[in-house]
Amino acid sequence: MQQEILDTLITENKSKIIYLIMDGLGGLPRDVDGKTELETAKTPNLDKLATEGCLALLDPIGHGMTPGSGPAHLALFGYDPIEDNVGRGILSALGVDFGVTGRDVCARLNFCTLDSDGNVTDRRAGRIPTDLNEKLCQKLQDNITLSDGIEFFMKTESEHRALLVIRGDGLGGNIIDTDTQKTGVPPLEAVGKDEASKKTAKYVNEFLEKAKEVLKEDAPANFILARGFAKHEPLPTMEERFGIKCAAIAQYPMYRGLARLVGMDVLPRPETYDAMYQQLADHYDDYDFFFVHFKKTDSYGEDGNFDAKVGVIEEVDTWIKKLDDLNPEVLLVTGDHSTPAVMSAHSWHPVPALLHTRNGLNRIDHTREFGETSCGQGGLGRMQMKNIILEVLAAAEKIMKFGA
Amino acid sequence: MQQEILDTLITENKSKIIYLIMDGLGGLPRDVDGKTELETAKTPNLDKLATEGCLALLDPIGHGMTPGSGPAHLALFGYDPIEDNVGRGILSALGVDFGVTGRDVCARLNFCTLDSDGNVTDRRAGRIPTDLNEKLCQKLQDNITLSDGIEFFMKTESEHRALLVIRGDGLGGNIIDTDTQKTGVPPLEAVGKDEASKKTAKYVNEFLEKAKEVLKEDAPANFILARGFAKHEPLPTMEERFGIKCAAIAQYPMYRGLARLVGMDVLPRPETYDAMYQQLADHYDDYDFFFVHFKKTDSYGEDGNFDAKVGVIEEVDTWIKKLDDLNPEVLLVTGDHSTPAVMSAHSWHPVPALLHTRNGLNRIDHTREFGETSCGQGGLGRMQMKNIILEVLAAAEKIMKFGA
Repeated sequence: MQQEILDTLITENKSKIIYLIMDGLGGLPRDVDGKTELETAKTPNLDKLATEGCLALLDPIGHGMTPGSGPAHLALFGYDPIEDNVGRGILSALGVDFGVTGRDVCARLNFCTLDSDGNVTDRRAGRIPTDLNEKLCQKLQDNITLSDGIEFFMKTESEHRALLVIRGDGLGGNIIDTDTQKTGVPPLEAVGKDEASKKTAKYVNEFLEKAKEVLKEDAPANFILARGFAKHEPLPTMEERFGIKCAAIAQYPMYRGLARLVGMDVLPRPETYDAMYQQLADHYDDYDFFFVHFKKTDSYGEDGNFDAKVGVIEEVDTWIKKLDDLNPEVLLVTGDHSTPAVMSAHSWHPVPALLHTRNGLNRIDHTREFGETSCGQGGLGRMQMKNIILEVLAAAEKIMKFGA
Repeated sequence: MQQEILDTLITENKSKIIYLIMDGLGGLPRDVDGKTELETAKTPNLDKLATEGCLALLDPIGHGMTPGSGPAHLALFGYDPIEDNVGRGILSALGVDFGVTGRDVCARLNFCTLDSDGNVTDRRAGRIPTDLNEKLCQKLQDNITLSDGIEFFMKTESEHRALLVIRGDGLGGNIIDTDTQKTGVPPLEAVGKDEASKKTAKYVNEFLEKAKEVLKEDAPANFILARGFAKHEPLPTMEERFGIKCAAIAQYPMYRGLARLVGMDVLPRPETYDAMYQQLADHYDDYDFFFVHFKKTDSYGEDGNFDAKVGVIEEVDTWIKKLDDLNPEVLLVTGDHSTPAVMSAHSWHPVPALLHTRNGLNRIDHTREFGETSCGQGGLGRMQMKNIILEVLAAAEKIMKFGA
């Protein structure tokens, strides 16, 4: 839907929308009984919602496309996962809760090992411990000053991974990686692809030159590779696009950051699932839309731990029962992408989704359980993930009629 | 499908296509048994066609978008409901069977009440009776002459609503509403947004100035508000686009008008459903394509009368049996949009559709009844309404192979 048309149709009302997102929810069967993680889990509450509601399969990006967390969440929030995609460097910044500004260019760094000829021998510097990474980041921060008043910030992610932020006026983020992804060759210099980015590249190269000097005795971590340079291009907020005031309830920094990118208010980090519910209840009157994010389905999927992923789904199923007290008009239960435990990785498989209303405005599709197979029979069909927000807004009666 | 490609593939043959459209057909369940109006209706003939044919769910505009009758019918006819959307003023003209020409700019009028300061006190002039509206339209027509030979026409719709048509050469329809949608303020002057529309606005303002004088003693209907200015931009006809000679059989003016917009021959207004069948039979050899429109499914939906909507569907089911005598190669049964009785309004829900052929060229999807739920399981899947004509033309063997 073109935004300029939507702008004329969006209307406000008191209906509440809850997006309950289990990260990496979609799965695959592990053996001959043919059941996925979600289908294996005992989920009486989700099955009741599926019986009353309408199911779908959502494609985060498109057929055969495996999404990262960034584009997948943008699609969930109704943004185009390709057009509006966020650069790797920005995701790194969000992932460590760095407050990105419009003057920042961010990059993902690896500490690496150079030999005496200046060739890379290990792109991950032997996976140095995180606490050494922290010490080296501090050392670089303390010992380097860039010219022209340009600022920089370093922040440890984990092991050999860190964030670099270059802050100044008129900087561009269109810069080629210095990481060649190969060993036995020297790192590249930073090269900007437009005027603003050439300006940034100059300071990146100044930083790298000084870093080489600072780190010269710190082998195996005696240099740095940079990739995923990106500038933060502000997106129109969900409130601007859809007329809804949005809150995010999420434990992990990257998802909190993604929510902030689309203009949500991010509530203080909740320690437990109970605390997540309490935040929802406490702020229920303050917002139209709540993004509630459960991470561990994805983590266990990435670990290849089928049973533990099943366990988390069952835990969330119990949590969902409490929503009866709040009685939200529209509830969407889905994931951002699939992370089948049998793959130990994100996958391209479409994501099961459940749309449930308490205002009688969803079709009933006679599916009786929430699972990938039943979602393939769902009344909403298979659809682009970025469009599910339109079904949700319509069910909440927040979109008026087009044409007469 | 791009029209320039289609142009090279369209071929003519003797196959007949019937579009049987029940306006506002799609519905929602009203209670726990989970059946919609269509699913509640006893429809042995439609169920037989569903068993032999192939089902689909059609999106008139897109996910979550509730269509007006204009864009929904354009989509049914294979036009883009957004790109080719028809302005409000044109729909008003179609609705009162006014023969719009390419020199006309149309607007929807309200008779309104002005106080002595010239502020609007009632945007609907107390909803004056229709016969008073007719008298006032005649009075304006008789007492106003526009300069430069520009013509105008007024036609009563109902109560306070009327149609204004300004006719002349080189007029544009891109004019801001004079209706502010507020009371306590004066109406706006007409303002054109381009050169041709500025020309029209001049005559609209001349008309309004003279109308104020003519109506000065007619309070509460002592002035007029205008909105939805639109020019009739001719669309390529269905015959030009799809190589089919088309006839419309419809009782209500707006649908007759919409059919005329896409170049159909509109047969004389039939009084009864039997008369509709008789027209079809009488003209069966003269056309390739018949648009047969049943209105009352929508009317009862708008009234919130679930049972009456069920009754009309059952009546149409009986009517459909007669088509066996004509034996059309391709029959499409669907609606233009959903009008669930539980909402008493148009809605965004996709529309159930049934494609049936008598030449053996439809897939059989093992659905055995015509309803929203079974359509969700249909072999054609969920699709854009504007594309259904391509499935229909193909089933009628009117589209040749693309590429070798």
